[in-house]
Amino acid sequence: MDNSATTRVCPEAAAKVMEMMTEKFGNPSSLHSKGLEAENEIKSARQAIASLLGVQARELTFTSGGTEANNLAILGAVKARKRMGSRIVTTAIEHPSVLGPMAELEKQGFEVVYLKPGEDGKVTEEALLEAVDGNTILISMMCVNNETGAVQPVEAARRAIKRSKAPALLHVDAVQAFGKLPLKPIRMGVDMMTVSGHKVHAPKGIGALYLARGVRILPRTFGGGQEQNLRPGTECAPLIAGFGAAVRALPALEETLARMEGLRAYLLERLNAMEGITLNSRADGLPYLVNFSVDGIRSETMLHHLASRGVYVSGGSACAKGKSSHVLEAMGFAHSRVVSAIRVSFCRENTKQDIDALVDGIAEGMDTLAKARR
Amino acid sequence: MDNSATTRVCPEAAAKVMEMMTEKFGNPSSLHSKGLEAENEIKSARQAIASLLGVQARELTFTSGGTEANNLAILGAVKARKRMGSRIVTTAIEHPSVLGPMAELEKQGFEVVYLKPGEDGKVTEEALLEAVDGNTILISMMCVNNETGAVQPVEAARRAIKRSKAPALLHVDAVQAFGKLPLKPIRMGVDMMTVSGHKVHAPKGIGALYLARGVRILPRTFGGGQEQNLRPGTECAPLIAGFGAAVRALPALEETLARMEGLRAYLLERLNAMEGITLNSRADGLPYLVNFSVDGIRSETMLHHLASRGVYVSGGSACAKGKSSHVLEAMGFAHSRVVSAIRVSFCRENTKQDIDALVDGIAEGMDTLAKARR
Repeated sequence: MDNSATTRVCPEAAAKVMEMMTEKFGNPSSLHSKGLEAENEIKSARQAIASLLGVQARELTFTSGGTEANNLAILGAVKARKRMGSRIVTTAIEHPSVLGPMAELEKQGFEVVYLKPGEDGKVTEEALLEAVDGNTILISMMCVNNETGAVQPVEAARRAIKRSKAPALLHVDAVQAFGKLPLKPIRMGVDMMTVSGHKVHAPKGIGALYLARGVRILPRTFGGGQEQNLRPGTECAPLIAGFGAAVRALPALEETLARMEGLRAYLLERLNAMEGITLNSRADGLPYLVNFSVDGIRSETMLHHLASRGVYVSGGSACAKGKSSHVLEAMGFAHSRVVSAIRVSFCRENTKQDIDALVDGIAEGMDTLAKARR
Repeated sequence: MDNSATTRVCPEAAAKVMEMMTEKFGNPSSLHSKGLEAENEIKSARQAIASLLGVQARELTFTSGGTEANNLAILGAVKARKRMGSRIVTTAIEHPSVLGPMAELEKQGFEVVYLKPGEDGKVTEEALLEAVDGNTILISMMCVNNETGAVQPVEAARRAIKRSKAPALLHVDAVQAFGKLPLKPIRMGVDMMTVSGHKVHAPKGIGALYLARGVRILPRTFGGGQEQNLRPGTECAPLIAGFGAAVRALPALEETLARMEGLRAYLLERLNAMEGITLNSRADGLPYLVNFSVDGIRSETMLHHLASRGVYVSGGSACAKGKSSHVLEAMGFAHSRVVSAIRVSFCRENTKQDIDALVDGIAEGMDTLAKARR
């Protein structure tokens, strides 16, 4: 139940990766039929992902993952628009692969505004309207927060751009939303959207950036011209094709969402029956994700206890590697609540039995681990 | 016989990738045992590659391939040393993933010197000594040319740096040499070395940059701190582990080299018996690779003819996608010779029978394709 960190590769994707490695192993840039065979698989994967987003295949650029796509979107957009303004708006609860490029841009002299969320984990339309001005060249905002599941008001960011007549592009890190919510970048008014494979049962090491037709950003890597010169290098054909296969294997989103709502309701019911649990996620968040704090027990202690019982969850995000959560801190929670947070994140393979194992493990942990501390 | 473009993934690597996707699928940054399991596989792969190079594991940074590693080395080194000088020395026969960053640096105001090779495909020590001055901050030079197999005088580049007392780092693109020649970056005096998986029977989408201990370059991607902050993003654990498995599965280099010399000798013997063939590779080049021109028949025409017989070779490099070769042009060859070039590149799976099929195909092509043109 640590599926927001990463997921197991589904059989369809694993089989496709295998086929690409051992049979269709040509270089997609090769002119002979062995190259064409690989290129066709890439085309088919691009089309599958584009269809899920309701965009055109050529609007997608494959990258080595969400981090590279976020870096390309942010640094590539600012490089292209630096003469139009110097302000960038983002939130305090973004993933490190957004906050990292932002820190780099601050060093270069750009003014970065970090919007704080409320206790519900969401930034507000008012804050966006106040922050975005005519000098703003980029808004980068996640769709779903990776620690709390809070869904952010992306459409409000588009309204703020319109209201202020800012020359801003709107980038959305949709890594935690892709394949889970019905995401339509065109309807949302998004210029750039980051998606990643390994959160939806494709392998680690593959992601994509949606770049709306007509929107120009500058490349950050230079080479053999692949991916329309925006992201050159021999295409990672096995993982690209595997990503496509994983997306084709996704069950209908609404169906899975309903199942996840059922799992979440059951988890909340069991947690509510316990003493010493404080919820950090709200009911209107992504149902795949529940964050709560366990009174008096540090996240790391609890998660090792659970792992010893074969139950895998996380404290903050995997990428934070045990540092205390900047997301929960930005929400204004007390230190004791932040350092005792547990993130449970479901995938379509999880069952009520998994939740029972988790909650029983937590109850036992609260008993034995608390005793150990006395 | 287009193995310089890419290779088939070996069974050992394919099995390891599969294991990582379906069993050891944890996020290496996760604190629980599922994460540790994946991290241990990455450690083991890093060690295998480091051992082959005779370097320390922590001196290797995994990237999404050779292109990213070349970009990181060149742009990261120049970013770190821009206050020490403004001259960069490279060659006219580098891969696009070196020439691309160089063009970008020229736009930024750096002076880039492109050394031309002789007819033998090699740049000379004299040219290096002349080009490198006290204002030079980087030399980037390939080890083995990807179109001709010509081995470049990397040690001479180190001598030129010493002689001129330049504050230069020495970067070597060793993508075509890695796993084929005994490469020892420390003995060669190299600061940074690029290697790639998919030329040595690992999957496409994984490479590494060797960065000598104590040498500092600046990152180009920002995020969750992975790879010592030099190249963040969830590690592509399946392909990293697959790369390690492919390297462990490499037969002894000297043994394979001897076999390749046998294959090359046989190919040359058969080509020498034909009219209308001009060799573009020399006898002191990498034996894995033979480049020659076929009088009066365009590369693309010949390679499609060969592909129709199940024989896969290339014109120039795969990344050039049919553009005429900048390498052969830099060697001063006539246009007719450049546009009729065929690159044959072996791997350890090739046999004399493959060469017979190739040469018979070429002979037939010279007959029928020439007729078609009359």
